[in-house]
Amino acid sequence: MRPSGRDLSEMRPVSIETGFTKHAEGSCLIKMGDTHVLCTATIEDRVPPFIKGSGLGWVTAEYGMLPRATNTRMRREAASGKQGGRTVEIQRLIGRALRAGVDRVALGERQITVDCDVIQADGGTRCASITGGWVALRLAVNKLMKAGDVISDPLVDPVAAVSCGIYAGQPVLDLDYPEDSEAGVDGNFIMTGSGKLIEVQMSAEGSVFNRAQLDQLLGLAEKGVGELVAAQMAATA
Amino acid sequence: MRPSGRDLSEMRPVSIETGFTKHAEGSCLIKMGDTHVLCTATIEDRVPPFIKGSGLGWVTAEYGMLPRATNTRMRREAASGKQGGRTVEIQRLIGRALRAGVDRVALGERQITVDCDVIQADGGTRCASITGGWVALRLAVNKLMKAGDVISDPLVDPVAAVSCGIYAGQPVLDLDYPEDSEAGVDGNFIMTGSGKLIEVQMSAEGSVFNRAQLDQLLGLAEKGVGELVAAQMAATA
Amino acid sequence: MRPSGRDLSEMRPVSIETGFTKHAEGSCLIKMGDTHVLCTATIEDRVPPFIKGSGLGWVTAEYGMLPRATNTRMRREAASGKQGGRTVEIQRLIGRALRAGVDRVALGERQITVDCDVIQADGGTRCASITGGWVALRLAVNKLMKAGDVISDPLVDPVAAVSCGIYAGQPVLDLDYPEDSEAGVDGNFIMTGSGKLIEVQMSAEGSVFNRAQLDQLLGLAEKGVGELVAAQMAATA
Amino acid sequence: MRPSGRDLSEMRPVSIETGFTKHAEGSCLIKMGDTHVLCTATIEDRVPPFIKGSGLGWVTAEYGMLPRATNTRMRREAASGKQGGRTVEIQRLIGRALRAGVDRVALGERQITVDCDVIQADGGTRCASITGGWVALRLAVNKLMKAGDVISDPLVDPVAAVSCGIYAGQPVLDLDYPEDSEAGVDGNFIMTGSGKLIEVQMSAEGSVFNRAQLDQLLGLAEKGVGELVAAQMAATA
Amino acid sequence: MRPSGRDLSEMRPVSIETGFTKHAEGSCLIKMGDTHVLCTATIEDRVPPFIKGSGLGWVTAEYGMLPRATNTRMRREAASGKQGGRTVEIQRLIGRALRAGVDRVALGERQITVDCDVIQADGGTRCASITGGWVALRLAVNKLMKAGDVISDPLVDPVAAVSCGIYAGQPVLDLDYPEDSEAGVDGNFIMTGSGKLIEVQMSAEGSVFNRAQLDQLLGLAEKGVGELVAAQMAATA
Amino acid sequence: MRPSGRDLSEMRPVSIETGFTKHAEGSCLIKMGDTHVLCTATIEDRVPPFIKGSGLGWVTAEYGMLPRATNTRMRREAASGKQGGRTVEIQRLIGRALRAGVDRVALGERQITVDCDVIQADGGTRCASITGGWVALRLAVNKLMKAGDVISDPLVDPVAAVSCGIYAGQPVLDLDYPEDSEAGVDGNFIMTGSGKLIEVQMSAEGSVFNRAQLDQLLGLAEKGVGELVAAQMAATA
Repeated sequence: MRPSGRDLSEMRPVSIETGFTKHAEGSCLIKMGDTHVLCTATIEDRVPPFIKGSGLGWVTAEYGMLPRATNTRMRREAASGKQGGRTVEIQRLIGRALRAGVDRVALGERQITVDCDVIQADGGTRCASITGGWVALRLAVNKLMKAGDVISDPLVDPVAAVSCGIYAGQPVLDLDYPEDSEAGVDGNFIMTGSGKLIEVQMSAEGSVFNRAQLDQLLGLAEKGVGELVAAQMAATA
Repeated sequence: MRPSGRDLSEMRPVSIETGFTKHAEGSCLIKMGDTHVLCTATIEDRVPPFIKGSGLGWVTAEYGMLPRATNTRMRREAASGKQGGRTVEIQRLIGRALRAGVDRVALGERQITVDCDVIQADGGTRCASITGGWVALRLAVNKLMKAGDVISDPLVDPVAAVSCGIYAGQPVLDLDYPEDSEAGVDGNFIMTGSGKLIEVQMSAEGSVFNRAQLDQLLGLAEKGVGELVAAQMAATA
Repeated sequence: MRPSGRDLSEMRPVSIETGFTKHAEGSCLIKMGDTHVLCTATIEDRVPPFIKGSGLGWVTAEYGMLPRATNTRMRREAASGKQGGRTVEIQRLIGRALRAGVDRVALGERQITVDCDVIQADGGTRCASITGGWVALRLAVNKLMKAGDVISDPLVDPVAAVSCGIYAGQPVLDLDYPEDSEAGVDGNFIMTGSGKLIEVQMSAEGSVFNRAQLDQLLGLAEKGVGELVAAQMAATA
Repeated sequence: MRPSGRDLSEMRPVSIETGFTKHAEGSCLIKMGDTHVLCTATIEDRVPPFIKGSGLGWVTAEYGMLPRATNTRMRREAASGKQGGRTVEIQRLIGRALRAGVDRVALGERQITVDCDVIQADGGTRCASITGGWVALRLAVNKLMKAGDVISDPLVDPVAAVSCGIYAGQPVLDLDYPEDSEAGVDGNFIMTGSGKLIEVQMSAEGSVFNRAQLDQLLGLAEKGVGELVAAQMAATA
Repeated sequence: MRPSGRDLSEMRPVSIETGFTKHAEGSCLIKMGDTHVLCTATIEDRVPPFIKGSGLGWVTAEYGMLPRATNTRMRREAASGKQGGRTVEIQRLIGRALRAGVDRVALGERQITVDCDVIQADGGTRCASITGGWVALRLAVNKLMKAGDVISDPLVDPVAAVSCGIYAGQPVLDLDYPEDSEAGVDGNFIMTGSGKLIEVQMSAEGSVFNRAQLDQLLGLAEKGVGELVAAQMAATA
Repeated sequence: MRPSGRDLSEMRPVSIETGFTKHAEGSCLIKMGDTHVLCTATIEDRVPPFIKGSGLGWVTAEYGMLPRATNTRMRREAASGKQGGRTVEIQRLIGRALRAGVDRVALGERQITVDCDVIQADGGTRCASITGGWVALRLAVNKLMKAGDVISDPLVDPVAAVSCGIYAGQPVLDLDYPEDSEAGVDGNFIMTGSGKLIEVQMSAEGSVFNRAQLDQLLGLAEKGVGELVAAQMAATA
């Protein structure tokens, strides 16, 4: 029933290639099917003004899409002079999600910026960004711990995200672009490795849903995030 | 236990004053406690390029906060040269929410822009904007129907929104600013008059939550939205 | 002869509701007929760089119009990415006018920002902004004096403004929008409570005027400002 | 008494060199003492959207200052990414002033843009821009008439402007920078060759003025504009 | 003598992986040592306004760097609101270079946009962009020809570019970042497959050079471009 | 053969009028035929952050064109909200060129900004800017040396620039606009008074060139720069 022939609860193949670029303190190229996102983590000694002197660390994220990551070329945001609403919304989401898994006291007064740049898009770029972004963050924090700059591990629980939705009347896991553009209801579940919820964003466009359906989608999400966390562990072992 | 002395499932007093400004096709000043939002609806004969010639209508929203709506003055977005990420995120949410209650075929090829401007803020401005925005939309559509420009009512179901969260370990309804700034978990539920879900946005900042808690919050939201829809009906009767 | 039926030297009804918003140090909603402007005054301990360390205070103003304050919706300036020329011109005028009534030594090294946001427009928004802005300023300064932060009253003389113009060949006082859009000559007189001139801006569009007419308009302005100052006194008594 | 040794009613030497640049349809370099402004007039066959098809012409102006026109270098507006409030205010004034002397029916549906670029500043740049701008406009219109594109002269009356102010307690004509920066009251009078008023902008900074003083300043302005119009006539004879 | 141990006239290893992304009409990942650039070519049926209706085609380029392509993180240009001077300069160069190898009549009235995004930088990113950009262009044009949309091959001669400079007093070929940051003289030679010059940009920073040295650098460039063209041929065979 | 009737190696008449504006530390109006550029040099005690505390000086440049410097009016860059790519490219070139002739240790920790504003354009504005910019720089440095603020002359060698190109198949010197717009190959040579090369920018648009031609153009450039340096010496003697 799904365009890709996948089962309702079947994820696309996931691969995470760490160390994809040499300069960043942590980096990976995550592929969820045909969605490819390059994630890098940069450590800096400064923090935003609102926590200066607090001893707390900060994790933030930026998101971008290469102009031809999509089927038709999108205008380059640097050329149009601002980040679009969708970009801003996504990068705020990524930052919030990653911070939920961080002990900011243990991190100490420094900032880690996770850049997620979509090389190729086929649906689910924000979930791939969060999942791959956590891997880049993990690698960067490992460097800090190895150097003795951070003593107690600030990454208290892995963070991963997966999309779910109602496609052709059926709850499905990990929507690709053809599904995403048809689904009446879809959204993202961001969870921890221990199965806790960090963020639920479920939204209907030209449709509605009910509590029973929300529950079914939650079940699918738990399965999907479990697989993603396993991939994160394997990549950073 | 709540700073305001309210019960866990008690809303703030809601008032909706319609016709607050004379130029707009629909307008109201909605007050949810000390949160006051002016909502206006503007009808225009043009639609965005991507639906030109489709016969479909469009509903969109813009959101703003007066500089001194808050406790300390915020920089005017017109002066800083762009709408901040929070503003963009909120106005996209309002537009999406309102469209979910609209039969775009019945509306016909025209656009209604709902402007939500926060006069005074005390938490929950996006929910007040959606709830008040729907009232402005209702009044504008009434005008179209009265003039015979629209025959069949395009507003298929009222749309309202309420915030819920976990404050001091307890699920509470309709957070005000003192609660909002302390809550580890909070979010918004957007629902229809008939009790269907349109959007769920539940997010933890420095915390996590589980399925049971999500369920409790859903229950509170159903109660709150019920009361808001009643207020909408009373205001537009 | 006037569209509203007013006499040539008759003002629109003026009302000033103080304390319209709870957060600002001073606030009012001023109505001059159908022109409604929300004015708030914010006290901050910082001053602009060019007077840092001088011991002098500063009063500045910002002006905005809600998108649907007017008959047809105007584009939101925050969305278009900059304040238009008209906005910039008006807010510079308001700031200059208010400073003319302030003893900046007595104010001490602090800044008061007066925000004037037009909720509904029907001509004369800049004059209403100055007149209402002074009320907000007065209330904020009262707070400083009550707290003992300022000893000698820095508001040496009330400041108010009124528009005049030549409409259908006749000098008229306090133009509303239908008059304003037809008048060949119009402008604003900003004066003090004691009858001194602060600023005269009289301008012809597609017309000219002579010294005798300027003199007649000055006479009308004196009458109008007198009434506005009385309203300011009543509101802040 | 004046820093320059001039009499109270004495203008600075005025010179107008026409044809300063070869590309523009009309151009001049106007010098009012040490204030030097290059004015060019450009004829284009298009008009702004709001008068398309009306048969009416349009005259507009832009104003700029070279970065080192002033005593200390100002940031280039093109580099800072926007025109400052002062620039916007001035160019709107110049456009309004010039249009007051134009019969827009006679001009026909075309636009003339007058660019005023300050090469060197010593006070009074907006007045020099208006006075020199009219000369550029005159020369451009002459070209249109010579070519038979315009039959009846659209320039019904010359337009010129001069500043006046109260310096050291005395009304003075044509303020230079040292006077301008000290004057408690100053402003600009824009008049026609036949002695009619187009715009009066008189403003007090940290001071006030009365009707008698405004009258004295008007007298000075009439004298000054008379001399400027004579210079305009000589330059375009 | 070179930090990398290369001979003076030795290029870094070059690899070109075509088809790196699936959506673009042509794409490759070019690696010149540790400099990695993703190049995509997008065909669109529209052309810029200035050649509309001329029957001529257009080739243009855009350039970007991922924030952490470099040793320290650079601010994302989309976030800072504009493309920096270096970016603008480079993308104009790439476009000009590629157009020099195109028969715009044969291409027909369509536009090909070549996006060059630097994934990892180690010097010579503009040369890699031109060389890889030509490969993407070649692949896109192949598609047009295969589809019969273009009959005669518009790519008249391959285009490639290499940097040269004087490092530690010696002329060297293909500078990497450590050399580039130390070289007193460096620049880029853009040439065709048949050995003609398209663009020479040689520049001294804190140094000068003479005709004999320019001649030596030209000799090195001819060698380098020869090798690059061979790699282009191999990748697109 | 040339539109102007000049010989292939004949420059346009050059004139340099120093002291063109009174405020700048150094200024001149340079005319190369009908290309007129006003150059001013401003000395400031601050330096860019990246050399703060290094003891080194900095020379930078900005470039602009008055809107009607050209045959048809160009949009004012301050109004369009950013400097175009061409402007940015040119001002970076001017700054680089001038720095090549400066001993930054001798200059001391201060910045000199050279503004080049094109009053009238007829081809070769960037070369005129560099040549005239050096004169303004020379005059400003003279002031520093006279005042004893700088002891040893930081201007080690004059810097001048000239354009060359292949017009109608012939190498020609100092292209004017009619030639520039037709030339298949053209570029700029920036050289020192002692005949050394600082920058070579030779570029083909819709054409190619070879080493022999590059050599011929270099010969022409040497002749042209020699004449320009003589004019610089005469102007600053």
